[in-house]
Amino acid sequence: MKIVIAPDSFKESLTAMEVANEIERGFRTVLPNAEYIKIPVADGGEGTVQSMVDATDGTIIKLNVTGPLGHKVQAFYGILGVGYQGDKKTAVIEMAAASGLHLVAEDKRNPLMTTSYGTGELIVDALNRGIEHIIIGLGGSATNDGGAGMAQAIGAHLLNSAGKAISPGGAALTELVSIDLTDLHPLIKACSFEVACDVNNPLCGNKGASAIFGPQKGATPEMVEQLDNALKHYADIIACCAIQDNRDYAGAGAAGGMGLGVMAFLGAELKPGIDIVMETVNLAGLAKGADLVITGEGRLDSQTLHGKTPMGVAGVAKAQGISVIAIAGCVSDDANVLLEHGIDALFSITPRALPLAEVLSNAKHNLYSTAKNIAALYALSSAK
Amino acid sequence: MKIVIAPDSFKESLTAMEVANEIERGFRTVLPNAEYIKIPVADGGEGTVQSMVDATDGTIIKLNVTGPLGHKVQAFYGILGVGYQGDKKTAVIEMAAASGLHLVAEDKRNPLMTTSYGTGELIVDALNRGIEHIIIGLGGSATNDGGAGMAQAIGAHLLNSAGKAISPGGAALTELVSIDLTDLHPLIKACSFEVACDVNNPLCGNKGASAIFGPQKGATPEMVEQLDNALKHYADIIACCAIQDNRDYAGAGAAGGMGLGVMAFLGAELKPGIDIVMETVNLAGLAKGADLVITGEGRLDSQTLHGKTPMGVAGVAKAQGISVIAIAGCVSDDANVLLEHGIDALFSITPRALPLAEVLSNAKHNLYSTAKNIAALYALSSAK
Repeated sequence: MKIVIAPDSFKESLTAMEVANEIERGFRTVLPNAEYIKIPVADGGEGTVQSMVDATDGTIIKLNVTGPLGHKVQAFYGILGVGYQGDKKTAVIEMAAASGLHLVAEDKRNPLMTTSYGTGELIVDALNRGIEHIIIGLGGSATNDGGAGMAQAIGAHLLNSAGKAISPGGAALTELVSIDLTDLHPLIKACSFEVACDVNNPLCGNKGASAIFGPQKGATPEMVEQLDNALKHYADIIACCAIQDNRDYAGAGAAGGMGLGVMAFLGAELKPGIDIVMETVNLAGLAKGADLVITGEGRLDSQTLHGKTPMGVAGVAKAQGISVIAIAGCVSDDANVLLEHGIDALFSITPRALPLAEVLSNAKHNLYSTAKNIAALYALSSAK
Repeated sequence: MKIVIAPDSFKESLTAMEVANEIERGFRTVLPNAEYIKIPVADGGEGTVQSMVDATDGTIIKLNVTGPLGHKVQAFYGILGVGYQGDKKTAVIEMAAASGLHLVAEDKRNPLMTTSYGTGELIVDALNRGIEHIIIGLGGSATNDGGAGMAQAIGAHLLNSAGKAISPGGAALTELVSIDLTDLHPLIKACSFEVACDVNNPLCGNKGASAIFGPQKGATPEMVEQLDNALKHYADIIACCAIQDNRDYAGAGAAGGMGLGVMAFLGAELKPGIDIVMETVNLAGLAKGADLVITGEGRLDSQTLHGKTPMGVAGVAKAQGISVIAIAGCVSDDANVLLEHGIDALFSITPRALPLAEVLSNAKHNLYSTAKNIAALYALSSAK
């Protein structure tokens, strides 16, 4: 019997690898002779670097970079190891690690000022280590600068009318008059970039970056208008400089316009995060011949349908006719809708009425215990 | 496929029949063509009357009787219907319905004064309706009177030195000098009595009724000694009257000495409650040929091992080699010990961290949903 365990992390309590370990431990008590393949996965959002590093026995690189408001922050990215598709030439970056909203105190959040510069520094560090393929997750950014800061960090000159570099932040984009790419990092061209993007917003307008994501980053209605105009101007200048005009491309507005920025300056391809992760960890290849795939996530609800890990895993498994069980810390009242979309059965690990803190702190035991009982039921009826 | 659903109630939220209905509903969504047999069960404790009436399509009889402190209380008992072993000649009485601790306000609890008279009135009512077999559950009593009140209600004369009836309560037993059974209800002898008793305490001494159960009924250490002496005197008089002396019989001390009382005045047999219930509902007969038995209880923990419904059901099912799944509202951290005692897999219905009140109020949905997913997993692997 071959069982593939491919969960996401349980946010606030367990990494994806810890989740996989507990599920395996529970199953092994019942099915000790099964072959277990553990593949911690993620959906391109928070936790993706850790999951993919864990999945490939890779390395986390920590370094100080420029934070969203210009202060240094400690950030990180991952270099995938040699497991699965890992080849030590692939890096995984979460934009939020360098330019995330969580790095800015609530009363300081101001997308007029925040910059994606630090994300560019992570890219440069990776390139300097010989990385040839970079995966970037866009979630959780504090910025609305169209990726201008990132572009500057990798060597693009974004110049104002005085021929000087424009200031950081979304507001300063209006100063931009020309772009000079002659000093762009020389390894950019040789590197391929995949960007995990799960929104399809264009750069500007009422469905654009500023209108949709600006408010949660601290923008007032007036600032939204100012930022929207600034991004429009920025896109105009990019187009003038004979860089492809992707402002209306689905996802250009992701992460405060970073979607546009990665296309313009990195030549990146935007893809659903879950697809990138599934391909990178080679779930389809590893699942071949499996009897059962077990996935999981901190929370299962109707939102899980929209590009979350369990659906990505279920999609790959179902294409091979493999049964899929999902385990979660939290199962919402509407989660059974997932049973119509590739999940065969789903279970919560919560053993009884408890406060959240206690559920989180006892997550390992509860997960192990639930996995053991799922295995027992599975083994029971398999034995017939 | 034949599936037997034999759960206890989920205390404070669902009756055993409601539990069985939700489990069936969940399973039917996945296995619509299976044959389902629902048998609400109980362990002889609280809820036994309702479960057994539900299981046999019987009748609840309500009537006013003498409460523990002499005030009238509304009590009830059940007459089993014609389903299963029901024959309309069997009644089920919970002593607590007439003589229960919950009927006495906390500041009024005083086993020197409380009487089991009301329980005797329930017996008389049943006898007068032509009942030929009576099952009595002893749990939850407020009394320490050795069943003297019950005996008086069924016509025994418990007389003091003045030839008058002794007063109600545990303290007055010391006045007893003789017992006259000539006016005992004439149908007592023709009626068989089974008494559900899950403790093995003798009547007196440091493991006796007063020492072990007195304190929870309001007895101070001084009162415990007084009550213990009173019960000893009571047993002496019973022995003097040529009634068999069962004071050291395991269970004589149950329910404040009611164990002794039912043996002395009813000729009752004490048995584990779960055994009485399993026999009465004929679980063994109904489970014949079943593929799966599903049981459940409000709480599953290591205490479940001690005569609770899931163990009784598992015992019957395992004797026939049938798989057993248990479902609970609350699964304790030590519940997996049940997996070594006949339960094949167990699941909580709690979907996530929630306050108890919310879990209780949403129990139907959560139970249905959990049953559905258990069925899905069962069907999945059964299909292989």
